[in-house]
Amino acid sequence: MTNETATPVTVIGLGLMGQALAGAFLKAGHRTTVWNRTASKADRLVAQGARPAPTVGDAIEAGSLTIICVTDYEAVRELLGAKDVDLDGATLINLTSGDSAQARATARWAEQRGARYLDGAVMAIPATIGTAEAEILQSGPEADFEAHKSALAALGTVTYLGADHGLASLYDVAGLTMMWSVLNAWLHGTALLRTAGVDAVTYAPFARQIAAGVAEWLPGYAEQIDSGSFPAEVSALETDARAMAHLVEESEAVGVNAELPRLIKAMADRSIAAGHGGEQYPVLIEEFSRPSTD
Amino acid sequence: MTNETATPVTVIGLGLMGQALAGAFLKAGHRTTVWNRTASKADRLVAQGARPAPTVGDAIEAGSLTIICVTDYEAVRELLGAKDVDLDGATLINLTSGDSAQARATARWAEQRGARYLDGAVMAIPATIGTAEAEILQSGPEADFEAHKSALAALGTVTYLGADHGLASLYDVAGLTMMWSVLNAWLHGTALLRTAGVDAVTYAPFARQIAAGVAEWLPGYAEQIDSGSFPAEVSALETDARAMAHLVEESEAVGVNAELPRLIKAMADRSIAAGHGGEQYPVLIEEFSRPSTD
Ligand SMILES: NC(=O)c1ccc[n+]([C@@H]2O[C@H](COP(=O)([O-])OP(=O)(O)OC[C@H]3O[C@@H](n4cnc5c(N)ncnc54)[C@H](OP(=O)(O)O)[C@@H]3O)[C@@H](O)[C@H]2O)c1
Ligand SMILES: NC(=O)c1ccc[n+]([C@@H]2O[C@H](COP(=O)([O-])OP(=O)(O)OC[C@H]3O[C@@H](n4cnc5c(N)ncnc54)[C@H](OP(=O)(O)O)[C@@H]3O)[C@@H](O)[C@H]2O)c1
Repeated sequence: MTNETATPVTVIGLGLMGQALAGAFLKAGHRTTVWNRTASKADRLVAQGARPAPTVGDAIEAGSLTIICVTDYEAVRELLGAKDVDLDGATLINLTSGDSAQARATARWAEQRGARYLDGAVMAIPATIGTAEAEILQSGPEADFEAHKSALAALGTVTYLGADHGLASLYDVAGLTMMWSVLNAWLHGTALLRTAGVDAVTYAPFARQIAAGVAEWLPGYAEQIDSGSFPAEVSALETDARAMAHLVEESEAVGVNAELPRLIKAMADRSIAAGHGGEQYPVLIEEFSRPSTD
Repeated sequence: MTNETATPVTVIGLGLMGQALAGAFLKAGHRTTVWNRTASKADRLVAQGARPAPTVGDAIEAGSLTIICVTDYEAVRELLGAKDVDLDGATLINLTSGDSAQARATARWAEQRGARYLDGAVMAIPATIGTAEAEILQSGPEADFEAHKSALAALGTVTYLGADHGLASLYDVAGLTMMWSVLNAWLHGTALLRTAGVDAVTYAPFARQIAAGVAEWLPGYAEQIDSGSFPAEVSALETDARAMAHLVEESEAVGVNAELPRLIKAMADRSIAAGHGGEQYPVLIEEFSRPSTD
């Protein structure tokens, strides 16, 4: 049922993610216009009440807000750059995955054509769209975000990151690196414990507890980074490095993959070589901020 | 004040950690005998009520439970192997850091001399010993642990892991790998966000939330490992690998260190090459369980 007070929205791109986005808008009562290059992908949504637009230009005109979710930024520029498309006065929210440079360039390009533009990242799979579990990151002018945040709320938990259009992509990459790092450390530990006959299910609660516990340290450690001062309140990097050597040796001794502990040790060793052995772990921000030489 | 119902304990090795351990026993009211190679390190503890033993043999005879915490296992074997030391009937709890093979070998060695032996790991810094924050891991015969767990409780939060003496070392290594992995992923993200002028303090709560959120998935993912079946319920490894390529590219593009995302991608690529592209992430346990080839 369409709610006449809800913002009319348009969704361009009806792949796995675009269909989920349009479906969530429909479910929340938004008048929802859709367009996809391969028109048949709109059929199921149209049966649910979506309005198919014949062209991209018509689609953008039909809503006060246009969500774009296609394969990549090349596709975004191709479809928005078509002759019959007038972006003047349109509000575009691009949820296509890309990097921060593409987001900033596309924002400038769209703004030069008179559009308001927000860039976003979807940290979720299609099945969770429309639930609080789906994290949607947004970056761009705050006023434009404020004007449309109630409509976006139909998609999931929406977080505004700041005016720089590149932020959504950077947070997305940072978040995924954290996700896979926790999973890899858990897999490494599981592999170690399995050499002693311990089940993955037996080990998992221990890994969960360490990960959640260390997560609590981050805001405090962040203060050391912002102040640029790293006193060894908990332990010095040199002491840590001895334990890291032990991680590598134990992993090699029991015959599991040792690349993760070796990378942990290599980063610390470089920081010690740069003279930071007496400082605390967050001093490694200097190594993490430097391009890799290989 | 000594509590006459508390187990009399002995602490051998009064370095930074040994002094903290003996101090916590004294504070909890245990009659505490101490020994250190360099005798003067006992002075402060003796002033607090500890009893200095002239030899290792005397120290072990004085308590019903002997905690050993010295630099390494070579030192443990050297001091326990001295001619005047009789281990028959003694209970030893070794909190010296070492690997699982050393723990197992030292257990056999001590048991052949008539001792009861538990091996442990201290996941804490000296300053937290005696508080719940200090995690003490224990492995060895369960009956010996049960007999002494109330005394060990004076040191911190004590977790019994199982009869295999190598478990404390393996859990310790697994836990440290998780700790540094969360910290490194946070540092990588902080480095990325700083290229856009975002403070470490602004980014940290986001990193904390992702780490704590992913930690909750581990028990469920562990079931896939134990069952040996990895259906792509959330996403397929092939889809993950495309996002991983994006992590590497974005890191390189903004000029931060890209080794961590590259290792994440390399592990997934190997699993895909082994035919697991359509399965879910925990299938990487096979790569993590295999010795690295380089
Ligand atoms: N699926 C997920 O789990 C997920 C999660 C987070 C983020 N994302 C991101 O969301 C975006 C879309 O993903 P998806 O899963 O929906 O992909 P998908 O199922 O492969 O769909 C791709 C969509 O892009 C359209 N497209 C591609 N090139 C085009 C062009 N040149 N002109 C017009 N339309 C074009 C396709 O149109 P046709 O139908 O005509 O081919 C289709 O609608 C991607 O950037 C992806 O990284 C996806
Ligand atoms: N400190 C920490 O934050 C921490 C945290 C977790 C685990 N640990 C582990 O706890 C253990 C002790 O660490 P620590 O910080 O106390 O080290 P430490 O301050 O360097 O003290 C080392 C101790 O070992 C003794 N020792 C060394 N070789 C010996 C030998 N051949 N014979 C007899 N005694 C010997 C030393 O005696 P002298 O005084 O005569 O030299 C001293 O008591 C290590 O395995 C360490 O990895 C420490």
